[in-house]
Amino acid sequence: MTTPQEYDPYVQGCPSRALLDRIGDRWTVLVIGILADGPQRFSQLRRRVDGVSQKMLTQTLRGLEADGLVTRTVYAEVPPRVEYELTALGHSLRVPLLALEDWAREHMDEVLGSRQRVAERV
Amino acid sequence: MTTPQEYDPYVQGCPSRALLDRIGDRWTVLVIGILADGPQRFSQLRRRVDGVSQKMLTQTLRGLEADGLVTRTVYAEVPPRVEYELTALGHSLRVPLLALEDWAREHMDEVLGSRQRVAERV
Repeated sequence: MTTPQEYDPYVQGCPSRALLDRIGDRWTVLVIGILADGPQRFSQLRRRVDGVSQKMLTQTLRGLEADGLVTRTVYAEVPPRVEYELTALGHSLRVPLLALEDWAREHMDEVLGSRQRVAERV
Repeated sequence: MTTPQEYDPYVQGCPSRALLDRIGDRWTVLVIGILADGPQRFSQLRRRVDGVSQKMLTQTLRGLEADGLVTRTVYAEVPPRVEYELTALGHSLRVPLLALEDWAREHMDEVLGSRQRVAERV
């Protein structure tokens, strides 16, 4: 009999808290959003995530690969072609991330309005 | 006729990209998760978000208040009671954040398994 393991991000030191950081990160949200369209090369990702640095994109992709969300495939061509693709786990994460992205788009005006009111109050 | 404003976090400089950072932040996720249960005092929040520093909790609450997600109410008692409560906008954000939190809890084992395999491969 196995004991079902429980994870709780409200508890300090639980790995699920660090995982929340990873999956809530802006670059993770944007990279997974683009990979949801299908496999992409590094240069395509870099173009579509406007303003991401080479270093930050590399770091984000390595983290996603280590966590099993993205695969990296090297095709033996000249020059070699490298493609990044979502795993099934990565696709499952796209669902909540898209909801988060949609929330940001839909409520941006309300948030900006609130910031304006706070700024005028001071 | 007003032009509907479009926000796109894939575009550098769009305020929705910075908003994604704010709402995907671990402390935001956890604080909004606890406030979803009802109004809370600072000390209650601090106890329930295990390990959060006073400074970080203060900063998180101020940001959420400025963005219109949380209200701060001071009750004229001795000592004064201060309560934090989700606004309707804050409640609407709880939906995608809960999905994100649930994803982290449910898939933690798979992510840890992937990290283990990557570590053994090196």
